[in-house]
Amino acid sequence: MNRRIRSLPVLAVLAAALLAYPAQAASPGNDPAALAKIRDTAMASDYAWERTADMTDLIGPRLSGSAGAAAAVTQVAEAMRKLGARVTLQPVKVPHWVRGLESAELVEYQGRPSGISQRVVVTALGGSGATPASGLSAPVLVVKNFDELKARGAEVKGKIVLFDVAFDQHMADRGLAGQAYGQGSAYRRDGPRLAAELGAAAALVRSVGGASYRLPHTGSTGLVDGARIPAAAVTAEDAMLMSRLAKRGPVSMRLLLTPQNLPDADSYNVIADLPGSDKPDEIVIVSGHLDSWDLATGAHDDAAGVASAMAVLETLKKLDYRPRRTIRMIAWMNEENGTRGARGYLAAEQANADKHFGAIESDNGAGRPFGLRASVPAASSKLFAPLQAALLPIGAGVFQRQDALSTGDLSGLERAGVPSFAPLLDTSSYFDYHHTPADTLDKVDPDHLRRHVALMAATTWFLANIEQPIGRANVPGVN
Amino acid sequence: MNRRIRSLPVLAVLAAALLAYPAQAASPGNDPAALAKIRDTAMASDYAWERTADMTDLIGPRLSGSAGAAAAVTQVAEAMRKLGARVTLQPVKVPHWVRGLESAELVEYQGRPSGISQRVVVTALGGSGATPASGLSAPVLVVKNFDELKARGAEVKGKIVLFDVAFDQHMADRGLAGQAYGQGSAYRRDGPRLAAELGAAAALVRSVGGASYRLPHTGSTGLVDGARIPAAAVTAEDAMLMSRLAKRGPVSMRLLLTPQNLPDADSYNVIADLPGSDKPDEIVIVSGHLDSWDLATGAHDDAAGVASAMAVLETLKKLDYRPRRTIRMIAWMNEENGTRGARGYLAAEQANADKHFGAIESDNGAGRPFGLRASVPAASSKLFAPLQAALLPIGAGVFQRQDALSTGDLSGLERAGVPSFAPLLDTSSYFDYHHTPADTLDKVDPDHLRRHVALMAATTWFLANIEQPIGRANVPGVN
Repeated sequence: MNRRIRSLPVLAVLAAALLAYPAQAASPGNDPAALAKIRDTAMASDYAWERTADMTDLIGPRLSGSAGAAAAVTQVAEAMRKLGARVTLQPVKVPHWVRGLESAELVEYQGRPSGISQRVVVTALGGSGATPASGLSAPVLVVKNFDELKARGAEVKGKIVLFDVAFDQHMADRGLAGQAYGQGSAYRRDGPRLAAELGAAAALVRSVGGASYRLPHTGSTGLVDGARIPAAAVTAEDAMLMSRLAKRGPVSMRLLLTPQNLPDADSYNVIADLPGSDKPDEIVIVSGHLDSWDLATGAHDDAAGVASAMAVLETLKKLDYRPRRTIRMIAWMNEENGTRGARGYLAAEQANADKHFGAIESDNGAGRPFGLRASVPAASSKLFAPLQAALLPIGAGVFQRQDALSTGDLSGLERAGVPSFAPLLDTSSYFDYHHTPADTLDKVDPDHLRRHVALMAATTWFLANIEQPIGRANVPGVN
Repeated sequence: MNRRIRSLPVLAVLAAALLAYPAQAASPGNDPAALAKIRDTAMASDYAWERTADMTDLIGPRLSGSAGAAAAVTQVAEAMRKLGARVTLQPVKVPHWVRGLESAELVEYQGRPSGISQRVVVTALGGSGATPASGLSAPVLVVKNFDELKARGAEVKGKIVLFDVAFDQHMADRGLAGQAYGQGSAYRRDGPRLAAELGAAAALVRSVGGASYRLPHTGSTGLVDGARIPAAAVTAEDAMLMSRLAKRGPVSMRLLLTPQNLPDADSYNVIADLPGSDKPDEIVIVSGHLDSWDLATGAHDDAAGVASAMAVLETLKKLDYRPRRTIRMIAWMNEENGTRGARGYLAAEQANADKHFGAIESDNGAGRPFGLRASVPAASSKLFAPLQAALLPIGAGVFQRQDALSTGDLSGLERAGVPSFAPLLDTSSYFDYHHTPADTLDKVDPDHLRRHVALMAATTWFLANIEQPIGRANVPGVN
């Protein structure tokens, strides 16, 4: 506990805390005054906004292996050193996939006037194979789901298969954006591979996302070497067009995609430690991912997440608060197309997993947060009451326990028993921009971002200082 | 009046009409039963939707001089002949501007990491000049309005001037989308020309439109020969990025635009007449424009307008209603970048303007209509009560008189005294898609489109049959 905390009327505060939460031992982690101070300091700062702006305005896209990703490693490491954190660059080998030319047009269809072809807006999926340099032309087979692909398996050979599956915006509007994304992205992940197994010449998926502004949404696909066919997302509008034309008669497409799968590249996780005072070997991770897709500047996904994690350290430094456990800010590399950063960290720390007290990641955009998700044992939930109380004034007092969060970068640690934490937030418009050229700084609300920092900083402080054990994650299906 | 109308209990209907509107002489134009029948027939038909689909799905973009525009002339003429209308192709020479390559990136700015440049999404404005084939590089000067351009006139020479003027969505949401567009598009129209006069190397305007999905909105610009500098729209996001970077320090851009201004091309207005029974020399025009911008399929702008006008003839034919005056469906060519179709028609019919009883055009998208705008003398407004009464059941009973509508294709006729009519409609989201790649069929609501047809068909019938004169347009400032 630092000198400012000591200068508070400690006894009165502790008495109040004990009255409010009689079951708990008092500690700096559940000290209401400290948590309130952290919250208010975060709510008065634009540090996370400035870091988000630096990452997106000065660098832009940061796909693994790119100059942007390398520049982001340098930028974040420098900012953390400036704060006095102990910075380590942890080497990781990352996939190096590079987008090439991409174009598509419908060259044959029933009712096509002579001399006309219809442009289709496509964008290659990460990991896609390439067409010949002159493109390929093939009939289009539209399917609405995996069952239809299976039923029409005999028709697939030599065709361009389109999975025309609409994103369920109604589900997203009901607060289930993640589930809607899960449903849709299953086609992006598995569709091209299944089409390749049936001999497809190429595979297209309808963009997985909410709004419809002729925007293609990229993302990674699960193709395997030896069957790496060209695979791309088309816009919702173009998927609907192709479905309508297919009802009129046979449709053929000319498709050009020239991405390259280059040898793995050298990159890094950026790790910045704020060493703990009396339990320095115990670690609380607060994190976001540094890489983004190549189409946009990845403001929501995930510059805002990294910047919020960075701002946790800045908030504590501004207050001169020193944690009991070590707080470790991690800017993960390669969440988007390989999670090599998370895998590398896990490999290095596997034997040390027990020393990881908890791990936070923000990777669902910077929508307004209203609480915390946590994969702690049910019995531990009540311990979080002081944290909830501190976050209630900013509307972020909800505590949602789950058996597993299964987030991109933390799922390995979670399976090793490390409880995961993530902001619970409004994601209803997140998938409008996600993985598109429109994921830009102007979409990030500075006030929402401050709330993210307040939530993450208070949670980090709570975890880094609490006296009681919060237990271990127990992911169903994992021993 | 045709046999079906005669078979109605005419006396009862006329008596009811006379009781409701005692000041009016009864006529087939204000016969409530006929107007109701037209409305209900239109509301039960998908003809306009099918024509919109044919224009957008089968042809796609229809910029003047393109193969798409030519195919649309043929397609619409054929559909009108199929209905038994008397079809004329009226020759017009149209501008032939062709988009080329277009790309832009910010190559210098304060804080730029080595090896990084930021992509800017641009699209050339219609009539833009070209950069050298290798592009041009120049410093960027950001201005917020014409006054700032003037004040900083000495800095303009050799620069790329960006007019970063935001579209006023709040104004659009208040029902003033047209005014918001007028404000914004003044920069697109005049900005590049004014920048050219001050020696700018190129000019950029922030896209004029509502939603912000990294979509560039094209449109025509008022450059003149001899000073035809490269001129493009950038997305709202990119304009904001450049403004932010300009606050950090000097910004330079590499810009490539290779559009071509080709010699004027041959094209046509499509005119389809339904001859009048007892006043065949008097004409009521119902119209939309056939050309669109090249970025998208122009579903709202203005395939839906043309299709609605076509559907007016289809509705009357289905009912076997023959008008007293001649109903003339016109699919105008070249509204977007020259209005050569409207000018050609006006030149041919100038001496015959008095015989044009009224003219309708739908060119504000296919949002839900709630009434009619009209440039008739104030004293004539009350004549429209029976039309309003017939449209009230579909929520389209508002009658809004204005001194002038000044729409793209009808303004010449209006200045010659021909009253203009246009649907009064919800345009709050029209400028989200307008002149972008996202103006596609899926954005058109089939139910709204039926309402357009009902409104336009009832209005056309009313004008083609009414006994009383409705007076002439009296545009302020025109003798």
